[in-house]
Parts: sequence; C-alpha cells; structure tokens
Amino acid sequence: MSDVTASDVTALAGKALELDTADELGKLRERFVLDDAGDTVYLDGNSLGALPAHVPGRVEDVVRRQWGELRIRSWTESGWWTAPERIGDRIAPLVGAAEGQIVVGDSTSVNVFKALVGAVRLAGEGRDEILVDATTFPTDGYIAESAARMTGCTLRPLTPAEVPGALGDRTAAVLLNHVDYRTGRLHDLPALTAAVRRAGAVSVWDLCHSAGALPVGLDEHGVDLAVGCTYKYLNGGPGSPAYLYVRSDLQSRFDSPLPGWNSHAEPFGMRPSYEAGDGAVRGRVGTPDILSMLALEAALDVWDGVPVDAVRAKSLALTDFFLECVEAYVPAGRVESVTPAAHAERGSQVALRCSPELSTSFEQGGTPIAGAVMERLIAAGVVGDYRAPDVLRFGFTPLYLGFAEVERAARVLADQLAAAAA
Amino acid sequence: MSDVTASDVTALAGKALELDTADELGKLRERFVLDDAGDTVYLDGNSLGALPAHVPGRVEDVVRRQWGELRIRSWTESGWWTAPERIGDRIAPLVGAAEGQIVVGDSTSVNVFKALVGAVRLAGEGRDEILVDATTFPTDGYIAESAARMTGCTLRPLTPAEVPGALGDRTAAVLLNHVDYRTGRLHDLPALTAAVRRAGAVSVWDLCHSAGALPVGLDEHGVDLAVGCTYKYLNGGPGSPAYLYVRSDLQSRFDSPLPGWNSHAEPFGMRPSYEAGDGAVRGRVGTPDILSMLALEAALDVWDGVPVDAVRAKSLALTDFFLECVEAYVPAGRVESVTPAAHAERGSQVALRCSPELSTSFEQGGTPIAGAVMERLIAAGVVGDYRAPDVLRFGFTPLYLGFAEVERAARVLADQLAAAAA
Repeated sequence: MSDVTASDVTALAGKALELDTADELGKLRERFVLDDAGDTVYLDGNSLGALPAHVPGRVEDVVRRQWGELRIRSWTESGWWTAPERIGDRIAPLVGAAEGQIVVGDSTSVNVFKALVGAVRLAGEGRDEILVDATTFPTDGYIAESAARMTGCTLRPLTPAEVPGALGDRTAAVLLNHVDYRTGRLHDLPALTAAVRRAGAVSVWDLCHSAGALPVGLDEHGVDLAVGCTYKYLNGGPGSPAYLYVRSDLQSRFDSPLPGWNSHAEPFGMRPSYEAGDGAVRGRVGTPDILSMLALEAALDVWDGVPVDAVRAKSLALTDFFLECVEAYVPAGRVESVTPAAHAERGSQVALRCSPELSTSFEQGGTPIAGAVMERLIAAGVVGDYRAPDVLRFGFTPLYLGFAEVERAARVLADQLAAAAA
Repeated sequence: MSDVTASDVTALAGKALELDTADELGKLRERFVLDDAGDTVYLDGNSLGALPAHVPGRVEDVVRRQWGELRIRSWTESGWWTAPERIGDRIAPLVGAAEGQIVVGDSTSVNVFKALVGAVRLAGEGRDEILVDATTFPTDGYIAESAARMTGCTLRPLTPAEVPGALGDRTAAVLLNHVDYRTGRLHDLPALTAAVRRAGAVSVWDLCHSAGALPVGLDEHGVDLAVGCTYKYLNGGPGSPAYLYVRSDLQSRFDSPLPGWNSHAEPFGMRPSYEAGDGAVRGRVGTPDILSMLALEAALDVWDGVPVDAVRAKSLALTDFFLECVEAYVPAGRVESVTPAAHAERGSQVALRCSPELSTSFEQGGTPIAGAVMERLIAAGVVGDYRAPDVLRFGFTPLYLGFAEVERAARVLADQLAAAAA
C-alpha cells in the first residue's frame, strides 16, 4: 500500500471488528459453507450464491430416496408435482408478494419471454410498442427483441430515466431491471411502475439483482409482472430455476406463449385442447427440473426468521464500508466507483471502473483490463468478477459476509493496484 | 389365477429363466438401484427411469465440491459452461447423430417451441401450415398451437398415417412422435421424414418415447429437427433437461424464438445486439440448470459399451414375452393390447385397454378404471402407470429389466383381474 499508513489500516480494521460485533445477522454465516480458514473473501454471490450447509444432505435425500427408492411415486408422495408453486410461495415474502402469485421453473430468459409476450397480450389491441432498458443484462434485450418480433411490436431501447417521457398510448409493455447488473444502480421501482400504469401499459420487472438483497414490494407497488433468478442472492445453486410473478388480478387474463401441459387446468386429463389452469400455475410449461428445484427449496431455509429489512440495512452498511475502505486504501485515480453513492440508488454490489492507466501494468494479450485485474485479485483470495472492458464487480451478500472480510478485500485490491503501478 | 394351470406358470417361469440366462444385457442391471429383494417390478421407466447407482456420488461431488468449494470458478474449471453441448454429444450416438448437433437444456415443451418456430422459419415464406400428430402427448399439441399462432400459421391435427396425403406447398413444418405415448405405437420415421422432405417442408420429431429404447437414426434418415426428454429411457432423473437436435447443415439458418444470451456468438461480450453463435449452441437460451444437467451426464455413463441394437432386440423380446404371459395368464376379455403386434410398429411399452366390464369390480368414485386397476397393481408390487380413462401402461427398460420380472408382472396382473371378477 503506497499511500496508506498503518494507522489507516488499524482504524478500519478496528471499525470492521466493531461492525461485526454489532451485526445481528452475523450468526447466519454458519448456515453456509464458506472458507473459514479465511483464505478467500467471496464477493461473487451476485453471480452464484454460496452453498447453504444443509443443502447437500437434502439433495442426497432427493436423489437416493425420492428418486432411487420411491421413483415415480415421488411425483405425488414427495411433492414433486406441486414444487413450482410451493417454492414460489417461499420466495414470495422475500419480494413482497402474497401467496399464489409466483411459480418457479425454467430459466430467467424463458420467463422474460413468457412475461413480455403475456404483457403485450394483457395490454390489448392498439398498443404495439415495447420499451426496454437499454442498459439491461443483454439476454433481456435479446428476448425482448424476439417477443416484439413475434407479437408485431416495435422494440424501443432507452434508459430507465427516459421511460416516463417515452410512455404513451402505443406503449404495450415496459421491461425494466430493478438493479443494473453492471453498475449496481437501483432503479425507482415504485415511481416507474406507477408511471407505466398511468400510461395504461404493463410493467415487467427483472429482479435478478435485487431479490434477496433488498425489499422489492411487488404487491405494495402494484407491479404487474416480474421475473428473477434464484442462484444469486437466493443461493439456489448453479442454474437453479427462475421464477415468474403474475399479479393475482391479472392471472385470469395471462395468456402464456408457452402453454405446456404443466399449466393445463387438468394436466393428467391428456386433453387434445388447451385450457389454462387458474392461478400461478398458468406460468408453468413442461416437467420441472426436480433436482435443481428441490436444491433451491432447501436453500430457501436459510431465510427462516430473517427480515428483508435487516438484510437491506446490512447490505448498505457493507457497501458503504467497502467504499470507505477503497477510498482510504486505494491510491487515487486507479479506480472509480460507478455505483451510486446515494442509498436509494444502490443495490448490493459495488462496481469499480479501472482507470485506463492501469492498462500498462495489467493488460496482456486480449484480456480486458478488468479481467486482468480480477485475475490477480482472485489469485490473492478476493473473488469478484468483471464485465468487459473495465468494470470490476463486487457483490455483497448480507447473509454470509462480514465486515472484516470487506476490509480485507479492499486492502488486497489496494495491494494489487499499488504493486502494479510501482 | 382362475383359468391358468400350474403347468402354464411352470412353463413360462422356465422360459423366463432361460431368457434371463441368455440375456447379454442382464449384467447391466447392476448399474442401477433397484429393489433386489424382488418386491417390486418397475415397469414405469417410460415415465421416470431408475436411478443409476453411481449418480448419487457424482451429484454429491457437484454440490459439495464444485458448487460449495469452487463456487463461481466451476463455470470454467468444472466444465459447467460447456455442459449443454458436451452432454448433447453423449446423447448423439444413442439417437444416431454425429457430434455437434444436439444441445441439452430446458424442458421438452420449450424445445418443441424452439423447434417448431425454427422449422417454420426454415421453411420460408409462403408456407403457412403446421401439421401435428393429433394423437400426440398433449403438450406438443398445445405448444404447436402457440407456435402456429405466433408465426401466422394454421395448425392442422391429423394422424401420422394421414400426413403423407396432407403434405403440400403450404406445409411449413410437421411435428411427429416417434413412439406414441399412449399406445406405444412406433411410427415410420424414415418414410414420414422422406415424405415431409419431398414436400419441401421441415420435419420435427419428438423422441421422448424412443430415445434409449430403440435406434432412431436421425442423421441416416435425414431428420431436420428433433427434441426429446432425458428422464425416461435415458434415466437422467426427475425433470432432467431435454434436448434439441438441429441437423448440421440447417444450423446456420436456425433462427430460435428464444435467443437467450447463452446462444450468443460472444456470450460474455454483453453486447446490446444479438448475434447467434455457430452450431448446436444456437439452441441454448439461458443459464443451464447445472445440478439436473450433471446428474444426467453421470446417468449417461450406464450406456458405456452398450449397443443400441442389442437394447432394441431385448426390448422386443421383453414386450413379446409380456404379451405372451398376459395372453396365457389373464382371463379372456379382461384386457386387450392396443400396442401393435408387429415389431416394426412397436416401441418399448405395452398398453393394455381395460374391458368396460372390469368397472363393476374396480371403479370407485371418480377414479378412471385404469387408475383403479393400476392402484391395485402397485399395491401388489407391479409399478406401471395409466392414461385415463382405460389404458394401463407398462414400460420395458432393457437396461435393467429381466424376463422373470416380466413373467411375475403378468402373473400379478392376472391375479388382480381374476380376483376382481370373482
């Protein structure tokens, strides 16, 4: 550390200790498998959540007993058939939804397709424009393009700030991200949802980067449709199934472009003609991937007795403290935060843009600068990820991260950047 | 058994013993977890395949080490990212496909949607009719209806036998089942595929009930597109991901209605505009469900050194023998087979229709007659399933079933039916 004094470190390490001591959620860490030797600080829970400690045993039971012994009987006896709605109801309180509105299954991309086509159909005749966040995680934009093409709509990419001004009589649906995957910016879900509704259009929110990290309030704010993944802050495991929220009063009119037999009013009637079931089940398609789904169900147990408000408070404390440590430790001009400083605009990650001058020290071959820096950080025990070309991403999962780890991560970052510039 | 003599039983039990002794695939049973106390005969592998013995250990490694320890690093270090194509290449030889044409992921229903919309787009302008097997598993028909609606096509349900006469200049795509889920009838894939091609239309085959039980010959017969599930004869586990085959020379023109980021030419480029990747990867959508997918990958190990032709020969011997035992044991008029007697028209299941007169003894409340009979069979240790109202289904998985079990299943069936009529 070039510009950092030993007293800076002592002060911040001391503050970390105080924060950890006062942390009411600190004991939740025991619910996860983490590197307790302390060699690794895992700041990539916004990409893949850590493994909850009881999940392996539950998965083993699903495989050995439910599949291996009960076999086909498990569709009823082990509750496989009803898992998508049952697990949806477990996610519901985490995103502020009453029961019966969320169904789990398929990938986020597939759910974006269901939601957007469904939204256009809900909007009705005469509305033929889809607005989409131009800064969205790309898959949402690609799928939105397909949904527009297949429903005869025009797709209009714009920033969330431009949405209110762009809404009009032609707007059918608006697809927005609650938290930007790149910058960690939290968008104003209540205000944007209200604006969309006033225009008579249908709102679709992507909650991938907010659910499990902060309150969403789907019901409270009158969101129409929402989708989200479960492998980030919900810790469901790699590629665990996504979910779809359809507000209860819209369900009877929700017209899915993927009307598979699992969503039929009488799935085992084997009827030649389709008749949609009632409720959240209407969002189902085909046979659910049980192993991934029941691993997710088990993973959701870590939320028992955990208030989302407390999680949000700790999340902000973690990102505040990380920014404070980065500010204190990292020599000026090496990185700058692209994550908003205002709490109301911040999700649960910090994105740092690498200064172009770092390229001299880090860049090799075709690796983008952020990739080269992140490679060194990982080697030094701080696991985050990056988005090309120049953004380092650090995700903060309040359920299992402590403040001492945050301080250490900032110190390692400073070490690497200082060493490089020397 | 009312009309069966002890010598009938002795003779067929003796024949079963001979057949088991001569069975070259008999030793494969060890690769599965089955009820070796012999209490249960599992004839429902056409709905959910039995658990391969080594799968629990492999899944445990995926959960504890790959997810729990390596976490995000597993996307590269544990080969998660490339699993959909890698596992597709493992399935390829089982359905007669060269490498690079199959990708695993999503449910069968979702893949039917990709394939049918893709087929209509491949067929090109001026072709606006989709033909679909009217006797198909319902989800294919429901999804076909959605695909037709979203591509401006007309959907025309008909029997496979009617397809050749219905093909014409307007035909865009034809969706057919290789084996009928209800009757077990095997359709003539080579002839129907050739007819579809001659008409300039695109063929889509659903292999759910044939892959893993008999040779398919996708490449040999010039099939255009195909889909299939992996939890029946491929034993991938409950709801394990389905697959999509796009013949190599069609891949560059395959235009998926679900262009998620996983199918992008540069998925981590995070580009705002979509550009499809080359090859089978074009069939991918979102993040794959890794636990279910890697359980499937492990399950495919049971095929090591197993020729599909030998599996087919044993499958026919099993269904032949079951029909012979049913004929010998079950009193006349109680059930009749709706599965074709001709080998060329038979898949790997036997479907028996219950006579209406059984209703007096079995029917209670709203349960269909076949459900009531199957309930008794299961209680007596023979696990099959049924399709309302009157069809009993018995699936024969050549990899783990023996002839003595088949004889026993027929005997238990006869016992139940005889007892009921007494």
